[in-house]
Amino acid sequence: VKSTQLSPAELRAFPLLKPLREEMLLELATSAHALELTANESLFRAGEPATALYGVLSGSLVLYRSSADGREQIVHDTGAGRTIAEAAVFLYGSFPVNARAGARGARLAQVDGPRFLQMLDRDPAAMHSVLATLCRRLHELVDRVEILSLPDAGQRLARFVLRLPAEGRAGTFRVRLPVAKKDLAAQLAMTPETLSRVLKRWREQAWAVVQEDEIELLDVPALEGLAAES
Amino acid sequence: VKSTQLSPAELRAFPLLKPLREEMLLELATSAHALELTANESLFRAGEPATALYGVLSGSLVLYRSSADGREQIVHDTGAGRTIAEAAVFLYGSFPVNARAGARGARLAQVDGPRFLQMLDRDPAAMHSVLATLCRRLHELVDRVEILSLPDAGQRLARFVLRLPAEGRAGTFRVRLPVAKKDLAAQLAMTPETLSRVLKRWREQAWAVVQEDEIELLDVPALEGLAAES
Repeated sequence: VKSTQLSPAELRAFPLLKPLREEMLLELATSAHALELTANESLFRAGEPATALYGVLSGSLVLYRSSADGREQIVHDTGAGRTIAEAAVFLYGSFPVNARAGARGARLAQVDGPRFLQMLDRDPAAMHSVLATLCRRLHELVDRVEILSLPDAGQRLARFVLRLPAEGRAGTFRVRLPVAKKDLAAQLAMTPETLSRVLKRWREQAWAVVQEDEIELLDVPALEGLAAES
Repeated sequence: VKSTQLSPAELRAFPLLKPLREEMLLELATSAHALELTANESLFRAGEPATALYGVLSGSLVLYRSSADGREQIVHDTGAGRTIAEAAVFLYGSFPVNARAGARGARLAQVDGPRFLQMLDRDPAAMHSVLATLCRRLHELVDRVEILSLPDAGQRLARFVLRLPAEGRAGTFRVRLPVAKKDLAAQLAMTPETLSRVLKRWREQAWAVVQEDEIELLDVPALEGLAAES
């Protein structure tokens, strides 16, 4: 483990810390550290007191249980932008599982748990912002799970597109794609080829046309019918 | 809208309220109401002050925006067990979208927003429990999104099964399925037929055998290989 200082901007990259005001992030940064772990290096073991929470700056962290015969059972495999051990910190508990760096190592933000909690406890507005952020993020994820649970690729795309903010009038609704086309395919659990095939079919049926990073919705009722199929 | 009283047990059904102690739920129940909405009945309009949050007891709630020509654009379609408008309540804001009951109507728990917040503000332990619960639920959902984003059904099942708590020793690991087989298929975005086909293949290859609600993992390295494929 190699340790260096962290900037408020690096802390702000984590959804849990993003709602904090600049001076709070500065204060938190004074007790936070960047840790560099080499490939597979251990971070903590199950049962140790959870005095810090960790955010992945780069690389990955593997959370695992040890089974009876020493097999490593992976519980989570977390990448950049995610925090871990928040619940253990909030409950002044111990780490429920082991953690080690992934195969490419990891650069982590280590945030002092009790200090973070005290800061929120004495600042209700900041606490409420954190609560609001977590609730919003939960809704986003529940929506993603719902979309991803649809077995048909066209249906997943229709549901996704119809829920984006729309501009324009009937017959010429337009939605702006929030991500590049190849990331969109991955986000909707389809190959880029499947995405292209679905969009081609929609164009042929005059349901929708893609122009750069926008989709023009020509037949909203048809797309709604597809999205609602079960 | 028809309104009746609510019990603490009914409030406890919502993940956001579940961590509250019994006396807090009792206090919250005194200012909470059950609302009965008929099919498509309006609950609130965008821009109104968010003085309450709502939990869906049965039926469904549709959250929607109104587009320029009056088209209803659905943002969320929420079923039993989910709460809405938490973020707006936590930030003393206004509802960002419109809400109405779904096609079968809705029975809702209406919880006094400022009262809920005051209760948490004066009880740090309860506040921390709520934070911990939200963080745990976020991790669960991120894991589900990751599994559902895998394009191959066998890969989704392998990843899911390998992350369940395992019992036994090498060669005879067993995991208990947390849900019925038909719900498992839906949860992993596959048809029951696909699930049966994958399990049959695993049995033929001596990778895993299903017995009632347990899966015996005969070849963990093979399953890990399948789960890790990209």
